[in-house]
Amino acid sequence: MLRINLPRLRNDLEELGKIGATPDGGVWRSSFSDPDMEARAWYIQRIEAAGIQHWTDAAGNIYARIGEGGPAVIAGSHLDSVPNGGRFDGALGVVAAFECLRCLREQGVRTNLPVEAVAFTDEEGRFGGFVGSFAVIGTLAYEEAQRRRDLRGVPLVDAMRRVGLDPTRIGEARRQPGDIKAYLELHIEQGPILESLSVPIGVVQGIVAGSRTWITFRGRADHAGTTPMTMRKDALLGAAEFSLRARELVLTEGSGTSVGTIGALEVKPGGSNIVPESAFLTLDLRDISWDVLQRLLGRVHTLAEEIAEKWGLEVTVERMRTSEPAQMSPHLQAAIDEAARDLGHTTHWMNSGAGHDAQVLAKITEAGMIFVPSRQGRSHSPAEFTDWEQIEHGGNVLLNTLVRVANE
Amino acid sequence: MLRINLPRLRNDLEELGKIGATPDGGVWRSSFSDPDMEARAWYIQRIEAAGIQHWTDAAGNIYARIGEGGPAVIAGSHLDSVPNGGRFDGALGVVAAFECLRCLREQGVRTNLPVEAVAFTDEEGRFGGFVGSFAVIGTLAYEEAQRRRDLRGVPLVDAMRRVGLDPTRIGEARRQPGDIKAYLELHIEQGPILESLSVPIGVVQGIVAGSRTWITFRGRADHAGTTPMTMRKDALLGAAEFSLRARELVLTEGSGTSVGTIGALEVKPGGSNIVPESAFLTLDLRDISWDVLQRLLGRVHTLAEEIAEKWGLEVTVERMRTSEPAQMSPHLQAAIDEAARDLGHTTHWMNSGAGHDAQVLAKITEAGMIFVPSRQGRSHSPAEFTDWEQIEHGGNVLLNTLVRVANE
Repeated sequence: MLRINLPRLRNDLEELGKIGATPDGGVWRSSFSDPDMEARAWYIQRIEAAGIQHWTDAAGNIYARIGEGGPAVIAGSHLDSVPNGGRFDGALGVVAAFECLRCLREQGVRTNLPVEAVAFTDEEGRFGGFVGSFAVIGTLAYEEAQRRRDLRGVPLVDAMRRVGLDPTRIGEARRQPGDIKAYLELHIEQGPILESLSVPIGVVQGIVAGSRTWITFRGRADHAGTTPMTMRKDALLGAAEFSLRARELVLTEGSGTSVGTIGALEVKPGGSNIVPESAFLTLDLRDISWDVLQRLLGRVHTLAEEIAEKWGLEVTVERMRTSEPAQMSPHLQAAIDEAARDLGHTTHWMNSGAGHDAQVLAKITEAGMIFVPSRQGRSHSPAEFTDWEQIEHGGNVLLNTLVRVANE
Repeated sequence: MLRINLPRLRNDLEELGKIGATPDGGVWRSSFSDPDMEARAWYIQRIEAAGIQHWTDAAGNIYARIGEGGPAVIAGSHLDSVPNGGRFDGALGVVAAFECLRCLREQGVRTNLPVEAVAFTDEEGRFGGFVGSFAVIGTLAYEEAQRRRDLRGVPLVDAMRRVGLDPTRIGEARRQPGDIKAYLELHIEQGPILESLSVPIGVVQGIVAGSRTWITFRGRADHAGTTPMTMRKDALLGAAEFSLRARELVLTEGSGTSVGTIGALEVKPGGSNIVPESAFLTLDLRDISWDVLQRLLGRVHTLAEEIAEKWGLEVTVERMRTSEPAQMSPHLQAAIDEAARDLGHTTHWMNSGAGHDAQVLAKITEAGMIFVPSRQGRSHSPAEFTDWEQIEHGGNVLLNTLVRVANE
């Protein structure tokens, strides 16, 4: 079995973690920001120092490659981060893919198909997310690029021009399906499952479908001292019962891995001596099965109406957005699992509750993902961490899966 | 039976409602503000026009009086209002008391004891509330007056000087217990009970004890997509269950008229895709019985801790303030009830969930309150309204109760 060079990989991750570092140990590298451009320059310099061929496409995606011909087997992730995010999310997948190329080169391994490492532009969402991977699969050309802006209103096309990219040519980043054999992504789990199971390798089966729903219960504002309990229309009581019963719904009628979260709840008028007139909440509901998600969303409507009637309230339910699930390739799942077992690691087959470039690539090629544990499940935070030993295991699984697939 | 002159009383209330009027039909007369001073000047002019003796004490309380000697039977309320409040709260009690004096004078009724009408300073709370009545019972002298400020930081003593009052003499507003026979206050109910029962007259038995408690549940912020339902510490679930069970507690272990309100609830960090780390709520709990309130507050602690443990959360319970209940005089309750029944009105004996000057006067004399219905229970709002026929009934009950008590 081939092995990566952990000290070298660790050094790369630690160097990269200094670029855009925040005071409390996180990083902030929004796509095309100065720290992102610094990370890109650092990364290209590292590729050149290794003597490996590289290029940047019209969307700003950075490729490195060894071998000739095609189709290519590609591994990668992204260099950009969320505001004050962690040092592993995305960065691990990029530097591990690059480390795999270095290992193949220095160990003189020749594969039937060429192997590429890629760093995608704006996975995290400064300009809506998945800019680089959408461009690669051909769903983000100039027309769409012109519509994208960041939260401050800066257009994507201006940000591209500022860093020397020509947005009118972004469509040229597209790759043909026949040009890519497979896409593999090593990523931190961003959840607590692997750590809780003491399993070092997660084999991703699918990336879940998501939805966001806004629910508002409306009652009547009354004096908290003079209005008897039985004569109230208290909007908070509806929202409170909904919060508990939405959780029950997910547990009893979901797939077993369905998740539902009420992350925001706002009460008005919000005076301590006034019965709440309205209560607004957001429901984030996800499942690997589109059908299960649709069924749950249907039940959410019924539940909200039933609860509103019980408490004498009005309710509005607004479905704000849904995203379809993505299936990872069964063939790649098997290849990852075999590579892990050959290396002596146990595996856990699981879904990803978060989005990744792999779900985009899955539309034009076989895609697979390898998860390594996140300490305490923390992510999108400076507290994000994965043990170096587990990083090494993940890197070795990626390397051996790449070779396996590139030699088929 | 004596009768008030409703057209005259209605005219007074409507005139007074124009002073400090707000665009949507409410009034805004904070104590010692320009509109409050205008209302005071208007009121004194009305008293003078009726040829009735009057004076303003060192706290700015305005008295009118007919008859000589003592002790006095006093009726009254306040002219100040909450911001954008209603035209009846306080104002009704003042002009009705004055109307009673006018009726006694013009109908040549002589009572054994003198009868006074009073308009108290700052009942609603610009400077903390009950400034005038506290001064009368002797618990607000210069030292305490120096500590009181409004929300903008204006000291009470500056506001008094601005309107020509000498705050160093505020203690002179004190009246000796033997100087007052009884205090009677006609007020709108500010709740929905009388309207729902179709009863025109409420006989107030007591003014409830109140409390305000801050409760914070703390869990762990996690990714809404990647954290399984069973591995979460969701602070909102604790707050939601507490909201429902605190209501159950009040209904099952309260006195039957206990009220509990969670008027504010704040979730942090509040992102739709983040499991809530903390949930803060305010609990307003009131009951006529101090013992019942204390028992409920004790159970609130246990309940919060039980719920926190169930959901794997930490909880803090902070008791922010409590106020003692006030008992109205049983003798005055009987007098009010008899006067009402002699006038042909049904009565409902009830507690007041809101605070009134009568609870302060109850510390030095017999105090009694007469409630008239509030349309839809609305108060502290431009929507505040009471039918003129019910105003007339309330005025007549006040007049006949005053005569009854002043002739004992």
